[in-house]
Amino acid sequence: MLLPQFRNLAFGLFAALFFSLVSPSALAETDPLPSWNDLPAKHRIIAFVRQTVTPESARFLPAEKRIAVFDNDGTLWVEQPVYAQMVFTLDRIRAMAPSHPEWRTKEPFKAVLENDYKNIPGLSLDFFELMIPTHTEMTTGAFRKTVSEWAATARHPHFKRPYAKLVYRPMLELLAFLEKNGFQNYIVSGGEVEFVRALAGSAYGIPPNRVIGSALKTEYKEAATAPEIIRKKKIENISNGQNKALLIDRIIGINPVLAVGNSDGDYEMLEWTTAGKDGLGVIIHHTDEKREYAYDRLSGMGTLKKALDDASRQGWLVVDMKRDWLNVFPDE
Amino acid sequence: MLLPQFRNLAFGLFAALFFSLVSPSALAETDPLPSWNDLPAKHRIIAFVRQTVTPESARFLPAEKRIAVFDNDGTLWVEQPVYAQMVFTLDRIRAMAPSHPEWRTKEPFKAVLENDYKNIPGLSLDFFELMIPTHTEMTTGAFRKTVSEWAATARHPHFKRPYAKLVYRPMLELLAFLEKNGFQNYIVSGGEVEFVRALAGSAYGIPPNRVIGSALKTEYKEAATAPEIIRKKKIENISNGQNKALLIDRIIGINPVLAVGNSDGDYEMLEWTTAGKDGLGVIIHHTDEKREYAYDRLSGMGTLKKALDDASRQGWLVVDMKRDWLNVFPDE
Repeated sequence: MLLPQFRNLAFGLFAALFFSLVSPSALAETDPLPSWNDLPAKHRIIAFVRQTVTPESARFLPAEKRIAVFDNDGTLWVEQPVYAQMVFTLDRIRAMAPSHPEWRTKEPFKAVLENDYKNIPGLSLDFFELMIPTHTEMTTGAFRKTVSEWAATARHPHFKRPYAKLVYRPMLELLAFLEKNGFQNYIVSGGEVEFVRALAGSAYGIPPNRVIGSALKTEYKEAATAPEIIRKKKIENISNGQNKALLIDRIIGINPVLAVGNSDGDYEMLEWTTAGKDGLGVIIHHTDEKREYAYDRLSGMGTLKKALDDASRQGWLVVDMKRDWLNVFPDE
Repeated sequence: MLLPQFRNLAFGLFAALFFSLVSPSALAETDPLPSWNDLPAKHRIIAFVRQTVTPESARFLPAEKRIAVFDNDGTLWVEQPVYAQMVFTLDRIRAMAPSHPEWRTKEPFKAVLENDYKNIPGLSLDFFELMIPTHTEMTTGAFRKTVSEWAATARHPHFKRPYAKLVYRPMLELLAFLEKNGFQNYIVSGGEVEFVRALAGSAYGIPPNRVIGSALKTEYKEAATAPEIIRKKKIENISNGQNKALLIDRIIGINPVLAVGNSDGDYEMLEWTTAGKDGLGVIIHHTDEKREYAYDRLSGMGTLKKALDDASRQGWLVVDMKRDWLNVFPDE
């Protein structure tokens, strides 16, 4: 037990220390985003965060309003040539095939087992056929364990690295910078929520209660020693487009002030954060065919077309990966 | 900027201070639950929380696993003789009646306007008729504002006090004790999520992203300056019974270690927290007809029957309001 006078001294020193750590002048001393090139994108993000935490700024926000939302695939980690969840699903089909001889003649399983990629459905409602045996009729806990075990050995087909090493270093720095400034970072992914949760802790340090995503219906089931929650063969919600904004309103219930995405599926999330409000919207534009991939106007779920066309009018910051990022991955 | 040697000193003092604040020995010095009588219920709750934060304890949990879930009506504040949300709804019907002359002859509106209580539907699907004009076809923001404005002047029919003064002081102490020990407190209410959110900040200091509840479908709508999210005339989810456990798993994604409820609608939430796990389940039993109300085996949504019968077998702590609480309300 500290003596009262000593306690006051400690409080005073703590307050002084705290101020020295979070005040804008102290932040200026170290670069919070060293993997970002010294260009306008970096400046705008840093200025935004500093204004948010500076009581004298018109943009100042109390801590409980500092909510940031991030798409996952293509925003926090690599999504090309296929989403990690799709790789997981195909790997699981192959691993489970010995006990499913019927798959050898039944599509879409046959295409997966024969590596007939042109006949494997894209991540869509058709793809759900492949999700049934790999994602459903098991508990949330069992599914997460399977995903974690897969992630420990899975390698990206091109980079030959674990997915946890294919997170974007500039984004890890941004997450840490926000966290240090009292922000609550949420992932709002199109991916299945438990798949993303199983990876988000080790990949980004984001806990399960900060992950929102597409979801399967679940069922509460009494069992011998303890009840179980079972993942059913039915989609409850697809977290994409307008649904991302609706899920943010439903689950977080606080308007985000920063939204980061990389596709038209993030359009409404960006719009909800910025239109008529003072939030910052950021688009990660994949322009680096050497260090990562260059794409935008593809068809499919990764398409970035409308959001890119409207970025200037909406005031969204377009981050050009090739130009704005000094490093892309943690191991560079 | 502090000199480095000074900074080290400050860190040391901060660490000493921090330890003195959170170590079990320091907590023993001040009573964290002064409105609880010095009886086994209080002892068990304090012991549980201390074990959770003591690294040497078999029950120790890292901060990210310290999740506590609380029912709202009857657990954190008064729910008798009717739920606050019902009082709000009836008040709104009366306030809106001048622009709805058709209600004078149309049930269930007629019963409300004539104070014909036996013909006003209970909080149920029938009650939804009354929710349509009072809760739907408006934005989330507009609805929350209406609720806040109502709460500023509404008075409880029996206690003649604002609802914010009818929170249970022992529960406010428990919320604060948990928060101080690194817990994340969530409300998991049967009430409509935005109704509860509009009140939970001022009543309990619980932010919107820690409130889970029943929900209406919402719709994303483009509008002139900014998009809007509209509450629709359709129920998306009733947060009661098994659904409480499913919502906890879906939205929090971390198993709670403490659950507090007061009715059979909280049964599965308690069971999910405790059965086959090491969590603590707590039932608030309303036994104090003088200071509050005495009830349990009623029919309707507030029924406490099965959970009370099974409490001993399930190892749940039954808090007897009359015996265990020294004070009930903040203003005593």
